[in-house]
Amino acid sequence: MNRDIHPERAEPNPQTSQRSDTGFAPRISIEQVEEGHVLAPKFDRDGLIACVTTDMQTGEVLMLGYMNAEALRMTIETGEAHYWSRSRRTLWRKGATSGLIQRIEELRIDDDQDAVWLRVSIAGTKASCHVGYRSCFYRRVPIGQARKDGDALIYTEAEKTFDPKQVYGDAPNPTIL
Amino acid sequence: MNRDIHPERAEPNPQTSQRSDTGFAPRISIEQVEEGHVLAPKFDRDGLIACVTTDMQTGEVLMLGYMNAEALRMTIETGEAHYWSRSRRTLWRKGATSGLIQRIEELRIDDDQDAVWLRVSIAGTKASCHVGYRSCFYRRVPIGQARKDGDALIYTEAEKTFDPKQVYGDAPNPTIL
Repeated sequence: MNRDIHPERAEPNPQTSQRSDTGFAPRISIEQVEEGHVLAPKFDRDGLIACVTTDMQTGEVLMLGYMNAEALRMTIETGEAHYWSRSRRTLWRKGATSGLIQRIEELRIDDDQDAVWLRVSIAGTKASCHVGYRSCFYRRVPIGQARKDGDALIYTEAEKTFDPKQVYGDAPNPTIL
Repeated sequence: MNRDIHPERAEPNPQTSQRSDTGFAPRISIEQVEEGHVLAPKFDRDGLIACVTTDMQTGEVLMLGYMNAEALRMTIETGEAHYWSRSRRTLWRKGATSGLIQRIEELRIDDDQDAVWLRVSIAGTKASCHVGYRSCFYRRVPIGQARKDGDALIYTEAEKTFDPKQVYGDAPNPTIL
C-alpha cells in the first residue's frame, strides 16, 4: 500500500482552508489573529464589525459604519463599500440612492481583526453624510480649557454639499434616538 | 398676584439644563441631535460609544476604541484620550502603562451622535498599537482584481516601533478570540 502522502490527501491548513460560519477563516490563536496573514474577522454578537471610512485624498474621517459578513465580503469582491444598515436592518450598498458610491482604494484590518478601515474615493460632491455634509463628523466638541468659552458644538463645515430632501425624498431618516 | 415670569421660574431649556443618566444632555428629537449645538451622545446597550482615533499630523487611523460616559467625560475635561477597555472591563487612560499618551487636538461627534472622532498627538514613538506598531491597522486586505494574486494580508508597516514585552511585561493580551 502506498503510504506516500498525496497532496490532495494532505491535512488542510486550518488557517486558510477551513471557513467559519461567517465564510471567513476561523480565529485560532492570538498569534494568528494579530501577526498572521489570514483575514479572520471578529463579528460581534449582532454579527457586525465596525468600519471607519476615510477620504483617500484628504484623510478626513467620513463616517463610522458597520458591516455584517456579507457586506464585508461584497466590499472585498466588488471594490465598492457595502455596509449593514442598523436602522433599516438591511445590506446597504453605499450610494445606491444618492449615487455617492465609495470606491475602495485600500481596505485595512486592525490588530485583533474586529475593525475595518476603508480608504475611499467618491465622485461628484464627495459627500458621505445623509444630513448633506461631506463628513458625518461636521461638529467639534470644545475640550479642556476651551470649554470655558462654552460647551456648544461648533460646526466644521460651513454649508451642506447637497439637499437631503432632493436626494432621499421621503425615505425615513436613519437616525435612532 | 404677580404673573410675570421671573427668570428663575422660567421653564428650563431641556436641551441644555437637563441631564440624562449618562450625565450628558437627553436626546429629544432628530433635529436636535443632527442639527443642534448640544452634545447628546448615544451610548449602546453596553453603555459604550465607538471612537476612531487619527494622528493629527499624518491623518492615519491609529485605532478604533470604545468609550463609556465616564471615559468621554474624562477625555473632554482633561484633553487626554480615555477609553473603556472591553477586555479588562475598566476605564483606560491611554498611555498609562506605555507612556504613549494621546493629547486631544480636536474631538468631533457624528451626525446621529453615536460615534466620536479624536484627532491626537502622541509623544515619542507616536505608536498606539499594543502589538508594537504605530497604527493598529498595519495590514491591508487585497480587494477586487488584486485578489487574483492571493488573498493574504499585506503588512503596511515594515517593523514595530517598540517591543511590547518590554513595555507591557506580563500584562494579559487584550485580544479576544
